[in-house]
Amino acid sequence: MSDKLYQKAKSFFEDSKGSHDWEHTLRVQSLAMHIGKYENADLDILNAAVLLHDIGRAEEDEKKGEICHAQKGAELAEELLDEFNYSKDFIKSVKHCILTHRYRGKNIPQTKEAKILFDADKLDCLGAVGVGRAFLFAGEVGAKLHDKNVDIDNTKSYTKDDTAYREFLVKGQYIKEKMQTSEGKRIAQERHKYAKEFFDRLNKEVDGEI
Amino acid sequence: MSDKLYQKAKSFFEDSKGSHDWEHTLRVQSLAMHIGKYENADLDILNAAVLLHDIGRAEEDEKKGEICHAQKGAELAEELLDEFNYSKDFIKSVKHCILTHRYRGKNIPQTKEAKILFDADKLDCLGAVGVGRAFLFAGEVGAKLHDKNVDIDNTKSYTKDDTAYREFLVKGQYIKEKMQTSEGKRIAQERHKYAKEFFDRLNKEVDGEI
Repeated sequence: MSDKLYQKAKSFFEDSKGSHDWEHTLRVQSLAMHIGKYENADLDILNAAVLLHDIGRAEEDEKKGEICHAQKGAELAEELLDEFNYSKDFIKSVKHCILTHRYRGKNIPQTKEAKILFDADKLDCLGAVGVGRAFLFAGEVGAKLHDKNVDIDNTKSYTKDDTAYREFLVKGQYIKEKMQTSEGKRIAQERHKYAKEFFDRLNKEVDGEI
Repeated sequence: MSDKLYQKAKSFFEDSKGSHDWEHTLRVQSLAMHIGKYENADLDILNAAVLLHDIGRAEEDEKKGEICHAQKGAELAEELLDEFNYSKDFIKSVKHCILTHRYRGKNIPQTKEAKILFDADKLDCLGAVGVGRAFLFAGEVGAKLHDKNVDIDNTKSYTKDDTAYREFLVKGQYIKEKMQTSEGKRIAQERHKYAKEFFDRLNKEVDGEI
């Protein structure tokens, strides 16, 4: 990917919050390249998909979730890559990765590169990074520190009573089951264990047991 | 402490942020009572001091740090306890604890109860609780997730480039040396170890080593 396109991708994150900033994209890049080598993926397609996967997020945040950043990001990526004269096949492959990186409902990652982007993006929600991001996000939305007995009805939207722990119980703890590649699964299992132990310890500390 | 005074103390935290809310006070209470039993402290004085130690924080936040919440809290506590007919000696002891709970400059904790409040309050900055609070606070002030090479010049005030890790490097890592009681020191050493390992791991994850 050219430096110009890289800078263009980065420019979408100028006003982003810490939990979903350009550095999240760079961590996903590092993980994706690692898994990509195990999977013999097309690293050019993968790299472009990674760097562009969240460029629709600013608009999703601005419109308070009324649009999907994966859908929007795929559209923006098509425009950008076309502007930079990438081939139709390349663009189609990158678009598929971005469109399916959330993997909710019908948008299932079908290609090797799409599966890797999905895994790398989700791995950033586990481990010490994932724990830190969950608390940072909680702080950004004005949530409290902790509630051991938090309601985990996942149909409810985020409120001040939500916590990083709820995020782990509702989503984080199931990530390892959703991994699409074997190396992604291996890393997810290790990072899951760490995050789970963190919250187990947090519960004990809050209860005065440690 | 009467339920009325407890509710009055709690009312100071209605609009507080998650990193310094009433639940922080309750965690400090649990730690202080634990240490208080080891130290044969006056648990009535200690309990009143704990529950009132941060009641000046709302005003400090409102005035953007122009006043000191320990100083303000000591004054507010005196008024409140006087209203509830506590003895002059009791009030004086509680005031000393609150005034010295930050232990910066000349306000040195002199009594057993003041030393315990100081320790219990600082312990909430270490361990899994401390890690979570540091990221939550970072999110509240719009800081980023992480910067391994963050500037630790501690004369600078908080900016968007600050991180939970900086908080640990500038303050957190020295807490264990400042403990005033032996049980406080024991807990601090264990919680320090956990927090340090968390950030060591975070650095490795961000560098793609895990």
